[in-house]
Amino acid sequence: MVQTISELKSSIDDYLSDHLVADVDQATLYSSMRYSLMAGGKRLRPALTLATVEMLGGTVDENVIHAATALELLHTYSLIHDDLPAMDNDDLRRGKPTNHCRYGAGMATLAGDGLLTLAFQWVTDNGLPAAIRAELTLALAQAAGPAGMVAGQARDIEGEGHQLDLDQLRYLHRQKTGALLRYAVLAGGIITNQSRPVKAALADFGAQFGLAFQIYDDLMDVLGTTAQMGKQVHKDAGEHKNTYPGLLGVAGAEEQLHKALQSAKAAQTKLGELTGRSFAGYDQFLAYFKL
Amino acid sequence: MVQTISELKSSIDDYLSDHLVADVDQATLYSSMRYSLMAGGKRLRPALTLATVEMLGGTVDENVIHAATALELLHTYSLIHDDLPAMDNDDLRRGKPTNHCRYGAGMATLAGDGLLTLAFQWVTDNGLPAAIRAELTLALAQAAGPAGMVAGQARDIEGEGHQLDLDQLRYLHRQKTGALLRYAVLAGGIITNQSRPVKAALADFGAQFGLAFQIYDDLMDVLGTTAQMGKQVHKDAGEHKNTYPGLLGVAGAEEQLHKALQSAKAAQTKLGELTGRSFAGYDQFLAYFKL
Repeated sequence: MVQTISELKSSIDDYLSDHLVADVDQATLYSSMRYSLMAGGKRLRPALTLATVEMLGGTVDENVIHAATALELLHTYSLIHDDLPAMDNDDLRRGKPTNHCRYGAGMATLAGDGLLTLAFQWVTDNGLPAAIRAELTLALAQAAGPAGMVAGQARDIEGEGHQLDLDQLRYLHRQKTGALLRYAVLAGGIITNQSRPVKAALADFGAQFGLAFQIYDDLMDVLGTTAQMGKQVHKDAGEHKNTYPGLLGVAGAEEQLHKALQSAKAAQTKLGELTGRSFAGYDQFLAYFKL
Repeated sequence: MVQTISELKSSIDDYLSDHLVADVDQATLYSSMRYSLMAGGKRLRPALTLATVEMLGGTVDENVIHAATALELLHTYSLIHDDLPAMDNDDLRRGKPTNHCRYGAGMATLAGDGLLTLAFQWVTDNGLPAAIRAELTLALAQAAGPAGMVAGQARDIEGEGHQLDLDQLRYLHRQKTGALLRYAVLAGGIITNQSRPVKAALADFGAQFGLAFQIYDDLMDVLGTTAQMGKQVHKDAGEHKNTYPGLLGVAGAEEQLHKALQSAKAAQTKLGELTGRSFAGYDQFLAYFKL
């Protein structure tokens, strides 16, 4: 039986809340890291990993939770650094003052650095076999690093004020948002030691999910309210950010979202065929994309 | 036969210069990462790892160099973030404009994030056995993370304007500078799969070397010139930084440096006793501390 997103979220919240303190050795740094980590994230990424482990027949024990929640540390770092005055200069995140508004830009930079480094500690500092821990480390570094998420961030900064075409925009989003969500799903396959074809199908599902996620986020910046989103909206257009609705209009972006979701469902079907198991547990994640 | 520091430096320079490009997928990000990475560092940390591998009878092949030079990526990230306007706000590093002066604080933040993440990629993305790669990852994360270097940085920021006592200052320096140099030496023992007592003696040598290094750096800020150091000097006092000369005077700091070097030499002797090998190759590293 696969846990619901809300059950997964609750155990991830508890785990993070209990285990951060053991690995941070400076009071303000801990407070700053904890502030952003416990600010009410959806825990979508580690929940995807844990749900994938369950659907593949693996056991979600403490070792697996430690390795999976590492991704939430890393995701939180990316939000803190992204919000910095030198980057997007955002004041509000999840309905609260951003880290640097609360702790100053210096401590916020260090909180991000600490969370990023600790993510790599957590994927290795657990009782999983060494080969699996090494594979998780490599996959996470590739997803998050200068050919993945960080490259996407750099492309985003560089692209401001330039009109990207659809291929360029898709490439940017694949790096900036897609790579980490792709890793989230793939990690479930690494942890349960799946075959190459199964890992490839998992990665494909994660990549399409990630693409849908970014298009949805762009659409919500146009269609949502600050209260709904917990962050400032309508920012993208003012900052000449490249977005799907900006390039294709709202209807065109919705069409692209629909396409990405169809591709994700195709990968979901393929996973069932390859493994003889049910991946209906992904439906609750795909239900996230409500317009 | 152990290579000289200058031979090691030269092969590390070549390796970094040749191999960075393959793992960065955005032009400005690459330029920014490369700018700081190739700005003329001494390469002391990976050189310590490689010399340790050689003294322990290991072979310095491409896998070992890949894993060892990861530490220089990580060290370079720490300098870039440390120089940021929100942190030390330094304009000059190794005689050149700092990364953010050249690329802006946003791109400099990303260059640091990219180098940090890539460091974890390089310790895993090589042909060493998985157990060794996993152990390197964990040791590096512990040294660099929020109970190691990042905690030291946070303590440094928090300590400005407060007078620390000698124990507190030593603790700060052990985290801020010592942890990474300790890792540099320990990594040589992990790579060559040494026993626990040998690893402990290596870690001890590295920790004492690291303490000496920070005291020396503090002393040079007082005694050196900008031309000698390639960075602004006499900054610590103006910023009310806690330093050894500030706390103990120049003579007192020199005495502490001497003590740390004696402890390092004791660990060097113990390593010889434990392994029956010569660790005279460390002499060239200890010769760094010329006053």
